[in-house]
Amino acid sequence: MRGFASDNYAGIHPEVLAALAVANDGHQVSYGDDVYTEHLQEVFRGHFGERTEAYPVFNGTGANVVGLQAMTRRWSAVICAATAHINVDEGGAPEKVAGLKLLSVPTPDGKLTTDLIDQQAWGWGDEHRAQPHIVSITQSTELGTLYTPAEIAAICAHAHERDMLVHLDGSRIANAAASLDLPLRAFTTDVGVDVLSFGGTKNGLMVGEAVVVLNPGAVTGVKYLRKGAMQLASKMRFVSAQLIALLEGDLWLRNARHANAMAARLADAVRPVPGVTITRPVQANAVFAILPAEVADRLRKRFRFYDWDAHTGEVRWMCAFDTTPGDVDAFAAALAEEMSG
Amino acid sequence: MRGFASDNYAGIHPEVLAALAVANDGHQVSYGDDVYTEHLQEVFRGHFGERTEAYPVFNGTGANVVGLQAMTRRWSAVICAATAHINVDEGGAPEKVAGLKLLSVPTPDGKLTTDLIDQQAWGWGDEHRAQPHIVSITQSTELGTLYTPAEIAAICAHAHERDMLVHLDGSRIANAAASLDLPLRAFTTDVGVDVLSFGGTKNGLMVGEAVVVLNPGAVTGVKYLRKGAMQLASKMRFVSAQLIALLEGDLWLRNARHANAMAARLADAVRPVPGVTITRPVQANAVFAILPAEVADRLRKRFRFYDWDAHTGEVRWMCAFDTTPGDVDAFAAALAEEMSG
Amino acid sequence: MRGFASDNYAGIHPEVLAALAVANDGHQVSYGDDVYTEHLQEVFRGHFGERTEAYPVFNGTGANVVGLQAMTRRWSAVICAATAHINVDEGGAPEKVAGLKLLSVPTPDGKLTTDLIDQQAWGWGDEHRAQPHIVSITQSTELGTLYTPAEIAAICAHAHERDMLVHLDGSRIANAAASLDLPLRAFTTDVGVDVLSFGGTKNGLMVGEAVVVLNPGAVTGVKYLRKGAMQLASKMRFVSAQLIALLEGDLWLRNARHANAMAARLADAVRPVPGVTITRPVQANAVFAILPAEVADRLRKRFRFYDWDAHTGEVRWMCAFDTTPGDVDAFAAALAEEMSG
Amino acid sequence: MRGFASDNYAGIHPEVLAALAVANDGHQVSYGDDVYTEHLQEVFRGHFGERTEAYPVFNGTGANVVGLQAMTRRWSAVICAATAHINVDEGGAPEKVAGLKLLSVPTPDGKLTTDLIDQQAWGWGDEHRAQPHIVSITQSTELGTLYTPAEIAAICAHAHERDMLVHLDGSRIANAAASLDLPLRAFTTDVGVDVLSFGGTKNGLMVGEAVVVLNPGAVTGVKYLRKGAMQLASKMRFVSAQLIALLEGDLWLRNARHANAMAARLADAVRPVPGVTITRPVQANAVFAILPAEVADRLRKRFRFYDWDAHTGEVRWMCAFDTTPGDVDAFAAALAEEMSG
Repeated sequence: MRGFASDNYAGIHPEVLAALAVANDGHQVSYGDDVYTEHLQEVFRGHFGERTEAYPVFNGTGANVVGLQAMTRRWSAVICAATAHINVDEGGAPEKVAGLKLLSVPTPDGKLTTDLIDQQAWGWGDEHRAQPHIVSITQSTELGTLYTPAEIAAICAHAHERDMLVHLDGSRIANAAASLDLPLRAFTTDVGVDVLSFGGTKNGLMVGEAVVVLNPGAVTGVKYLRKGAMQLASKMRFVSAQLIALLEGDLWLRNARHANAMAARLADAVRPVPGVTITRPVQANAVFAILPAEVADRLRKRFRFYDWDAHTGEVRWMCAFDTTPGDVDAFAAALAEEMSG
Repeated sequence: MRGFASDNYAGIHPEVLAALAVANDGHQVSYGDDVYTEHLQEVFRGHFGERTEAYPVFNGTGANVVGLQAMTRRWSAVICAATAHINVDEGGAPEKVAGLKLLSVPTPDGKLTTDLIDQQAWGWGDEHRAQPHIVSITQSTELGTLYTPAEIAAICAHAHERDMLVHLDGSRIANAAASLDLPLRAFTTDVGVDVLSFGGTKNGLMVGEAVVVLNPGAVTGVKYLRKGAMQLASKMRFVSAQLIALLEGDLWLRNARHANAMAARLADAVRPVPGVTITRPVQANAVFAILPAEVADRLRKRFRFYDWDAHTGEVRWMCAFDTTPGDVDAFAAALAEEMSG
Repeated sequence: MRGFASDNYAGIHPEVLAALAVANDGHQVSYGDDVYTEHLQEVFRGHFGERTEAYPVFNGTGANVVGLQAMTRRWSAVICAATAHINVDEGGAPEKVAGLKLLSVPTPDGKLTTDLIDQQAWGWGDEHRAQPHIVSITQSTELGTLYTPAEIAAICAHAHERDMLVHLDGSRIANAAASLDLPLRAFTTDVGVDVLSFGGTKNGLMVGEAVVVLNPGAVTGVKYLRKGAMQLASKMRFVSAQLIALLEGDLWLRNARHANAMAARLADAVRPVPGVTITRPVQANAVFAILPAEVADRLRKRFRFYDWDAHTGEVRWMCAFDTTPGDVDAFAAALAEEMSG
Repeated sequence: MRGFASDNYAGIHPEVLAALAVANDGHQVSYGDDVYTEHLQEVFRGHFGERTEAYPVFNGTGANVVGLQAMTRRWSAVICAATAHINVDEGGAPEKVAGLKLLSVPTPDGKLTTDLIDQQAWGWGDEHRAQPHIVSITQSTELGTLYTPAEIAAICAHAHERDMLVHLDGSRIANAAASLDLPLRAFTTDVGVDVLSFGGTKNGLMVGEAVVVLNPGAVTGVKYLRKGAMQLASKMRFVSAQLIALLEGDLWLRNARHANAMAARLADAVRPVPGVTITRPVQANAVFAILPAEVADRLRKRFRFYDWDAHTGEVRWMCAFDTTPGDVDAFAAALAEEMSG
C-alpha cells in the first residue's frame, strides 16, 4: 500500500542499490579505513568546503547525538525549537545518551529566530542552569518550512557572539537546497553553521547519514563519540558508497526536487477541496492540513498517513523520491471523494 | 589487498545482496512494521523456539548494549570475561550509554566457568557494590574457542540460582553452531540463555544484527531501549531482509562452515612452520599465533592482520565467508617464506 | 548582611544544632544502620502514614533525582511545570544523571492542572517519544503558590488513570502545610502522591532532605540509586538527627509558620508602596514583585535578593525561619525610601 | 557498641562541632559564595600550594566522581587498582554518573606501579578502546598501605609522558601524611598529582570532603560538574567551616596520628596471638588479618568489624580519631580469649 505517511516508507533508489553492488568487490578495511569512505571526504568537501570532515553513521538520531556530543561538554544545554526532531522524536536519546538538556522554545513555524533563541540564551556562569552552548536548527524543518540563508546567518552570528555553536539537523537538507535552488553550502558553511547532520536515508539511501563537521574547531573526539554512541559501521564502505552515489552526481538534487514537486502538486490538488485547510507553507516535501476527523479516518484506510497533532486534527502528508504523480492524483481524488462522501 | 585481519573486511554475500534488491519493491511501513520484519520473527522462532522475539539493530555493540539494558536496572553490573568484546572493544559504550558496571574476570581461554563467575558473583543487597545481575558470555569467544552446550547449561543454572540472567554475545554464533554441528537453539534456548546478540554482519550481511529475546520474562522495554540507543532503523525492511536471506535457508551455516574450514586449513598449513606457535585451540574461524615480531611486520606488508597482544607478540588471523583456499595457501606460503627469510 | 535572597542564606536552627551535639555520642553504624535513622522512620510514618519509607539524602536535587529514578525506567519522561526546580535549577542533573527527559509545560502560576498535564501526557507505546511515566509537582511551588489538597487529588487521579505516578518536590513542603493549616499527609499520602522529596535545609537544618516513599509499590531500588547518585551519607546519623529534631516535635511547623508570616508581613508592607506591584499570590514564604530596575539595583546594595525574570524586571524576596519583623520592616522602609528617591 | 568496623562509625570531633556553632551566625550567601568557603581557599593553598582550588562536596564518592569528570572527556577511561574505592565501593557511580570506564589492574598491595599501569595504558587513538586518560591512585590505600613520594612521582611522570593526568583519592590522606611525617603537598602537589579528593569525614568531620585541584590546567567545569553531580551544598558555609576547623590548625594531623597509633597498637597487641596472621603492612589506620572463621564470628558479637575477603577469611580492623587505647586493649584481650576458647 502506497501512501504519504513518511519519506522513509520509500525504498532504495536504483542508482544507490547499483552502487552497493559495485562496492561489493573484494576486501576493504573495516570501520572506515576504506577507499569509499576516503573518497567520500572529497565528495563532501566539494559540497561543503575544504575544511569539511564527514563521519558516516547509521541514522539521523545517531548523527544528531554524535554531533551534539562532539560540540558540547557534560554540562551543556542545547537550544532548539519545541518541534525539533531531537526534542520530540528521538526517544529522549539526547538526554539519555549524551546527558544534554534541551532548552526548547515554542515557535509558530518550526523556525528559531534570534528573539526566540534569547528566551533560553541566558544564565552562563550560573551552575544551577545547564549551560546553553548550542543552537540547533532543522533545515527543512519538521513542519516543512525553510530558513533563508540570511535567517541562518543571523542565527549563527547571534550564537557565535554568545560563544554558542550552531548545529543543523539536515535530515531533509537536500529538500531545502532543492527548494531554495542553492548549493548546500550556501545556507550552511557559508553562513556559519558549525556542524550538521546530513540526511541520506529519507532521500533514497537504504541506510546512511553523516555527521558533517564544517568547522573543525567546533568539535572534539568525533570518532570516539561515534563508536561510543554505537554508530560505527564495521562494513562502512557500504554506507559511504551510498552517500557517494547520492552526492557525487546530482542524484541528491533530482530526488529532492522530485519529492518537493510532488508535495507542491499535492498541495495544489488539495487546496481547492472545500473543508480541507493547508496549514503550513509548502516549502519542501511535506504538506500539513486540517480536515474533518472522520474523513481522515476513512482516507487513512486507503492511503497511510499520520496525525501531526491529535488535538487540532492536523495531519501530515510526506512525499518521497519515489512518489509518483499518479500517487498524488489518486490521493487527491480519494480525498475529494471522502470529503464529499 | 586481501588478508586475515577481520571477518568484517569481507563484503556482502551475493545472496544477501540479491535479497536487498527483492525487498526494494514499493513502500513498506518504516521502523519495523513491515512484512519482512514480521516474517523475520517466524524465521527466528524456527531457529530458537516459539517464545523468541527478534529486534533487528545495526551493529554488534548496539545489540549488546540494547540487550543488556533490557535485562538490567540502573544499579546492575554484568559479569564477563576480561576479553569480552563488551569489555575491550566497544569504546566503553556499556558504561557510557547504559551506565553498566562490567565486573570482568581474567580467563585462560576467553570462557567463563561457574568458578570464575563466583569471583564476581557476590555482594547482593550491598548498595556499595554495583549489583551483579547478568552473566555475559560470548560464543564463539573472542579467542576463537567454544563453549559446549553442557558448559553453557552449567553457567545458566548457576546464574539463575543466584537470580542472575544470562546474555550471550553471538557475534559469531553461526561459527559456533557450525563447529559444534548443532542447531542454534541447542546451546542457547535449550540450555537456558535468556537473551542473545545475533551476529549477521561478520557472516555475510552488509549491516544487520539482532537482539534476540529467548526468555521474554527476562526483559522489559526492548523497543524503547532500541530507539533510545539509536539502533532503530527507519527502513528496517532492508535489515530484516538480509537476516531472512541468511537464516531462512542454510546460508548462515554454509558461510560459517566455510570460514571455519578456512581457519582449520590455515592452522594446518601454519602449524608445521618452525618458529610459529599456534596459541589457542582453533574451534571457529580464528587462528591465534606467536611468531617473531620482525616476521610479523614483513608479513603484514603482504597480508593485513592485527596484533592481539603487543606484549606477547600474539597475532590474530580471521577467516571469513569469502576467504578462499587460495588466500590461505598464499598466506601460509608467504609466512613460511618470511620465516625462513 | 541580611536579606531576602533565599531561605538557604539562613543558618541552623538552635534546636537542630543542639540535636547534632546530642547525636555525637559514641559510635554508630554508618550508612544508615544507626539508631537515629531507625527512629526517623517512625517519625516519618507518624506524619505520612504507616507505609512510609524515608531515605535521608544531602540535598534537594539529590532527593529529586533519586526519587525520580526509583519511579522510572530508562525510557521514561517526567511531566513538570516549566518553572519546576528540576527543570530550571538543577544544572540538568535529571537529564545527566538519570537520563530522564523532562516534558515541561508553561503555567500561569507554577501549578500543573490536568489540562496542562494533558499537553504532554500522550504517546505511550510510541518508541519515538520518551514515555510519560511521572507527573512531578512542587508544593509550595517555585512561585510561592499552593495547590489545594483537592487539586493534588485531581492530579493524582488523572495520572494514576494513565498509569503514571506522582512525584512531589517538597523542598518547601512545611511552608505549604503551615499555610494550608493541614497535616503533611493531607495533601500528600491522603490524596495519592507516590513519592516526595522532603525538604529540611531551607526550614532550619544544616544539611538534610529525604526521599520519602509514600507508596512502596511505586519504587524499586531506592537504596542502590541513592548510593549510585552519591547521596548516601556515611555518618548518616547526623542527617537523621537533624530531621528528627525538625519533625518529631513542631519545629518544622513553627519555622514554616514564621517564615510565611514574615512573607505576609513583607507583602503587606510593600503593597501600598506606589510603583511596586506584587505579582503572585503570597501563599507561602515568597513574595514576587515588579519594581523599577534602578530602584531594584539601589535596594540590592542594602539587602541582597535575586531577579526572578530579567526580561520583566520581576524580583523574588524569600523569607526564612530566622527572618525577623525588624528585617522586614527595615527592608520595606528601604524600599519605600528608594522608590521615592 | 564500639568497634573496629570503620572510621566512619566515629562521630564529630568536638572542635569541629564547635566550629559549626561559630559558623551559625547570621546570614551567609548560599552555594559557596560565603566567607567561610572563601577563607577555606587560603587554608587549602597553605597546605597544597598557591595554585590550589578547593571545591567542598558532601562525600568521597562525590569528590571522586566530580574530580574525575573534570579531568576527562566523554570517551575517557581511568586506570586504577582493582581494589580502588572507585572500582569496588561506589555502587558503579563512576560508570553510571560519569560514563567512565575503569580499567582496573590487580595489585599485590593496593598500589599501582608504572608496570601495572602499563597493563592498561595503551590503545590511544583506537576508538574501539575507551581512552586511558587518567591514572587514579589512593593514598593511604584501601589496604592500609602507603605510597612513598618517590613512588607517586614516578607514577605522575609516567602518566604525564603519556598525556594522562593523575588523580589521587585522598579519603585518608591525613593518615598518609601522618604516617609519612610529611606535609600534605610533599606527596601530592610536589610530585605531580593533578587533582585529589580530600577526605574529611573519616578524620573527624560530620560531613565534608573536597575536590582539590592542584593543577588548574587539568580540569574544566568543576563548578558545573559539582552541581550536576548533586554535590553542591546550599548552606556550604557549614561544610567549609568544618574543613577549616580540621585544616587551619593541626587537628587533621592530631586525629590522623592518633588513629594510626591505635592501629599500630592493635597490630602489636594482636601479632603475638597464635593463629592470627596480620596480612598487610600496617602503615596507616587499618589492620588486616586472617583468623579462624568461627573465632571471627564470636568476636564480632562483641566488637563490630567487617570481612574484607570472604574467600580467604581476611578481616579488616579500622581505627578512628576517637578509638581509645582502652578500645584496642579490650579488643585484643577479647581476641586472645576467643582464640584460646
